[in-house]
Amino acid sequence: MENLKAKVRTILDFPKPGIQFRDITTLLKDAEGFQEMTNVLANRYKEYEIDIIVGVEARGFIIGSVLAFVLKKGFVPIRKPGKLPGETIGIEYELEYGTDRLEMHIDALAPGSRVLVVDDLLATGGTMEAACHLIEKAGSHVVECTFIIDLPDLGGREKLSDYPIYTMMSFEGE
Amino acid sequence: MENLKAKVRTILDFPKPGIQFRDITTLLKDAEGFQEMTNVLANRYKEYEIDIIVGVEARGFIIGSVLAFVLKKGFVPIRKPGKLPGETIGIEYELEYGTDRLEMHIDALAPGSRVLVVDDLLATGGTMEAACHLIEKAGSHVVECTFIIDLPDLGGREKLSDYPIYTMMSFEGE
Repeated sequence: MENLKAKVRTILDFPKPGIQFRDITTLLKDAEGFQEMTNVLANRYKEYEIDIIVGVEARGFIIGSVLAFVLKKGFVPIRKPGKLPGETIGIEYELEYGTDRLEMHIDALAPGSRVLVVDDLLATGGTMEAACHLIEKAGSHVVECTFIIDLPDLGGREKLSDYPIYTMMSFEGE
Repeated sequence: MENLKAKVRTILDFPKPGIQFRDITTLLKDAEGFQEMTNVLANRYKEYEIDIIVGVEARGFIIGSVLAFVLKKGFVPIRKPGKLPGETIGIEYELEYGTDRLEMHIDALAPGSRVLVVDDLLATGGTMEAACHLIEKAGSHVVECTFIIDLPDLGGREKLSDYPIYTMMSFEGE
């Protein structure tokens, strides 16, 4: 996976001073990298029993959508408040300062669905934990949480210890 | 395309009273519908000379990403202000009330790239027009603007008359 990792760019001081932001857009715009990234995920999940793919707004849409296509599954978005037009269920979760909320259409998942949840980057894990709780609130089951990038220094795996986790590449102590 | 159109749900009074919102999430969550939608686009564009796919935040990410994969191209996001970590170019555009702004990484497109621009829904065309101007500002060329849903009563084709347009299904006078 080192060749894919080399296509991820690091931006200093975004979104605030002192943060090294791992920017996946340089991987996504690389046609070969985008194929390989997708194929790695497709190969991992082709034997899993999965009913549907959920992607978390917004970069999770990019990874989740293509994974839904290659696995021949449907795709469901989890979004920020007020974005989904139909009746939703929602969940509040805590940020470093204040709270945020995620929503999903109330009828998006058939009850008891086996769900693969997708986002681009695992940092503190707070958003993904909220997404998993929302899926469970809807009566479905999280098969695995999958990410392209892991920032293990931020404790996301500990926060998500109730769920299987896959990350494609790790930036540890860098 | 009538079978795909039947998978799009209409939500009354979203985002405000009197609006019939055409909700593509019911098509996306349908595995067969998602495959067919993607294959229609892939078949259309397989003979086009296209260098890269650009998707407009946020639902354009879902369609654009999967199209990039099947066409074996890279994917570039155009985003709302402040979301992209690297150096960006931006463009302001007018809304019904006030203005909005779109941004793209300044190095996202190789100069002279032939770009397919993707969003889910053509309404007034204002956002797509801004996206096209941004791509041209970056020194690249819009091959076509592609949408799943066309709302022709809202004048989007007139606003985008400088560009080739493809829409998969139309809701006219409904």
